[in-house]
Amino acid sequence: MSSYPDCIERLISELSRLPGIGRKSAERLAFHVISKSETDVKNLSEALEEAKLKICSCAICHGICEGSICSICDDVSRDETVLCVVEQARDIFALERGAIFRGRYHVLGGVISPLSGVEPEDLNIDTLLSRLEKDAAVEEVLLALNPSTEGETTSIYIAHILRSQKLKVSRIAYGLPVGGELEFSDPVTLARAIDGRRNL
Amino acid sequence: MSSYPDCIERLISELSRLPGIGRKSAERLAFHVISKSETDVKNLSEALEEAKLKICSCAICHGICEGSICSICDDVSRDETVLCVVEQARDIFALERGAIFRGRYHVLGGVISPLSGVEPEDLNIDTLLSRLEKDAAVEEVLLALNPSTEGETTSIYIAHILRSQKLKVSRIAYGLPVGGELEFSDPVTLARAIDGRRNL
Repeated sequence: MSSYPDCIERLISELSRLPGIGRKSAERLAFHVISKSETDVKNLSEALEEAKLKICSCAICHGICEGSICSICDDVSRDETVLCVVEQARDIFALERGAIFRGRYHVLGGVISPLSGVEPEDLNIDTLLSRLEKDAAVEEVLLALNPSTEGETTSIYIAHILRSQKLKVSRIAYGLPVGGELEFSDPVTLARAIDGRRNL
Repeated sequence: MSSYPDCIERLISELSRLPGIGRKSAERLAFHVISKSETDVKNLSEALEEAKLKICSCAICHGICEGSICSICDDVSRDETVLCVVEQARDIFALERGAIFRGRYHVLGGVISPLSGVEPEDLNIDTLLSRLEKDAAVEEVLLALNPSTEGETTSIYIAHILRSQKLKVSRIAYGLPVGGELEFSDPVTLARAIDGRRNL
């Protein structure tokens, strides 16, 4: 009995395919699962299948939704003049929690990363362009990609493509996070904070 | 749309009930799940339910098994004179991987921990005693509990109970792990290593 029973081994292998979960964590989770009640395990497995079944990609912004169009694209009270471009659907929720941005979104589905084999064609850039073409109300495209090398590259790429159009292209500010401390900030962030200084 | 759709929220809440998975990790896992194919998600949810359905506790040693008696208790070639007491079923697999111990096991299902409300009555100590009573072949009880305060307490408690019986009660050795370095070992482990020294 040096190896686990087949069904445990299968569960461990399925669990270790999840991001951030290695073999050891998967073993721990598997043994936790079999120690729980049947109802608890059923709840988890049903929640997994239900989420996968119900959640679709919004036909307009590629965000997530339970129908075909997400509640933001469907909301006529949103500001249709600003379109915020984000990397992934989760970023929309992060921005919405702030409740500051009232425009609409467009999810790229990633960033340009030649090392990982992600080219501009793999992203939702074509649908962004066709959306801007159809929707004359948009006056500004706000790029809210992560401040990584790939995020920067993608921002510059999109800004370059949109150059010919009569649109304002902006980018969210980089600098010190609120509550952060100068002393513990990395030099690149500080350089960005100085570079992006504002008159008071 | 500042909060997630209901089915995502439910999945996040179910996932964050797993050990070592907080709200943020659960969100990440949930979004990973909806990005996978329906088959992948089905495989995971089925593996969860199958493991819970098939795995039972062995009627003799309280280890895990797919029937009512585990393969070790069922194996007549195992040494019936030594009974190794472990905290949890997973420990059996760890010991079996070494392929040194050829006796049988008994799973306590935890350790005495008054702070967490675990009393001796909550552990499989009564079944250990009735097993020893019925099985005259056992000559030695080897305590292989974790070297924690609770593990120590439980070892001492069991050794005390078994004192009156004609049994050898032993405990696995504590000391430097193979591949470990003296320089980086904690004082308690070093004290144990010196205390447990052997003549060469």
